[in-house]
Amino acid sequence: MTQPESSTPTNDTPTIGVFDSGFGGLTVLRALLARMPRARFVFLGDTARLPYGSKSRRTIARYAAESAQFLVREQRAEFLVIACNTASALALDAIQAAVPVPVLGVIQPGAAAARAASRTGEVLVIATDATVQSHAYSAACHALGLRTLEKACPLLVPLVEEGWTTDLYTSTRMGAPGASPLGTRESDTSLQIDAPQVAVTLEVIRIYLDELLADAKAHGLQPDTLVLGCTHYPLLRPLIQKALPPGIRVIDSADAAAEAAVHLFNGRAAPLASDSPSPESTAGAPAHIRCFATDSVEKFQRLGSRFLGRPVGQVGLVDLGG
Amino acid sequence: MTQPESSTPTNDTPTIGVFDSGFGGLTVLRALLARMPRARFVFLGDTARLPYGSKSRRTIARYAAESAQFLVREQRAEFLVIACNTASALALDAIQAAVPVPVLGVIQPGAAAARAASRTGEVLVIATDATVQSHAYSAACHALGLRTLEKACPLLVPLVEEGWTTDLYTSTRMGAPGASPLGTRESDTSLQIDAPQVAVTLEVIRIYLDELLADAKAHGLQPDTLVLGCTHYPLLRPLIQKALPPGIRVIDSADAAAEAAVHLFNGRAAPLASDSPSPESTAGAPAHIRCFATDSVEKFQRLGSRFLGRPVGQVGLVDLGG
Repeated sequence: MTQPESSTPTNDTPTIGVFDSGFGGLTVLRALLARMPRARFVFLGDTARLPYGSKSRRTIARYAAESAQFLVREQRAEFLVIACNTASALALDAIQAAVPVPVLGVIQPGAAAARAASRTGEVLVIATDATVQSHAYSAACHALGLRTLEKACPLLVPLVEEGWTTDLYTSTRMGAPGASPLGTRESDTSLQIDAPQVAVTLEVIRIYLDELLADAKAHGLQPDTLVLGCTHYPLLRPLIQKALPPGIRVIDSADAAAEAAVHLFNGRAAPLASDSPSPESTAGAPAHIRCFATDSVEKFQRLGSRFLGRPVGQVGLVDLGG
Repeated sequence: MTQPESSTPTNDTPTIGVFDSGFGGLTVLRALLARMPRARFVFLGDTARLPYGSKSRRTIARYAAESAQFLVREQRAEFLVIACNTASALALDAIQAAVPVPVLGVIQPGAAAARAASRTGEVLVIATDATVQSHAYSAACHALGLRTLEKACPLLVPLVEEGWTTDLYTSTRMGAPGASPLGTRESDTSLQIDAPQVAVTLEVIRIYLDELLADAKAHGLQPDTLVLGCTHYPLLRPLIQKALPPGIRVIDSADAAAEAAVHLFNGRAAPLASDSPSPESTAGAPAHIRCFATDSVEKFQRLGSRFLGRPVGQVGLVDLGG
């Protein structure tokens, strides 16, 4: 009889640290869990100091480095995934300098996925103010031979956090957009597509995308790919696809980063990754995930499950000193 | 010949410190300037750590106390106006304990103005999450014999900061809603009332107010007064009034706080206050205002003038240590 596969981590199982300024990065953890069901994850949301999106590079670098050090020094993470576009854009160097473990951001994987998806080589990016102002996506895309046009969409994060979405988030690898969400707990209370709140969110997305597409036309671009450059945006994916003209493919950088993590970590810890994502393995109570936040534990618990697609469990409070 | 009135502060002119987590409190400074054109003002926006609205009482109290100490110890403010509903709601005691000068918040003046305005004694309050969860407005209103119903409206601050407003802000003492804004610099670039962005903001306000009014009806309340419990909301006043049924009066706590400040400070520094607000004295370049921010000086300068109704001038960067 062969040994049955076990999903229980052993003492040898490496710990993967996942960091975000808030809980949006739980969409990255969700995508990681689907691909590495046997890993042990520690997630830190620096909720006391969010949003990073409106802060300066200097401030973001300091906050992100402190957060990375908590995950590595105190939680013994052996890999770090920076599940925060703003920190990946503005502070990846600072984080790599602050900790002695491999660090993966979300920008480079997002750009690589766009490169793989685009036929015209012309790509649109939507993100927070700070991510756009950093031009990190443009730089990463240009290095791969893509032309880009970026747009900041500051209202989308608050709309997601207010819950004015359909919550029909499914990662591309887990199923088609519009498929049933994992678990039914959240879908029971989520808004219908025809609710006035969802209509507002769709209209906001249309205003942003219409401006972006008009701008692309004015620049003579023929974009065929849109990169979601913020970890909150996967929850808006069905509405974004509804607002887009046909022929534009949506790339989710949370998904792309999880895919890149599998490739990176497989060389070091092959048994962690399954060959294909396993939605079933992510259902039910969290077994090998520990979440920490620097503030707003209640809000983290309340909203986090929508991003993770299952209950986040007990959230530890961490004081990083301001 | 009598000495002509001078608007130039002398060495004897006291300095009034005005504090907010961001730049929304500039609506309070605007209302103060209209009433005390001869005072010297120092404004601090703790922009590195905003928004306070989503943070815990403990964190807010620490941030607010540090900010107050900067204004009193380093800028020698002799009075403090806490132009931040969240900090007034959650940290007024902590601030009063941290500095040896008189401290005025915005909650109590807002409640007093509602008491003066309401005939039914039943009042609605809209504010941020943290302000509502503190129930500080309810407590202050109940102490004055009012019944209240509060509602958090988390999308309104980002909508104002995105500029999806008409920017027709005028304080009640300066003129009727819909009157020309002070100065023409901002109105040149502001959105028209029929812009799709403004339609979105109006729809968001309608959704929030409809929920609040339905809730009031379910509670058997007959509210005749709505308190704007957030310093960003005065910029939405024309849209809020458009969304409200007739017969509900809008109370702006920024205005109410400035009025209370005049009464408080007149006893100590009578010559500072003019008998009536003087819109003219607030036009043109800032003469006796110095603004500081803990981060995002560029954003402060760009958005601040919309709240202050005139250019904010050079903004100093302050490091409060996290």
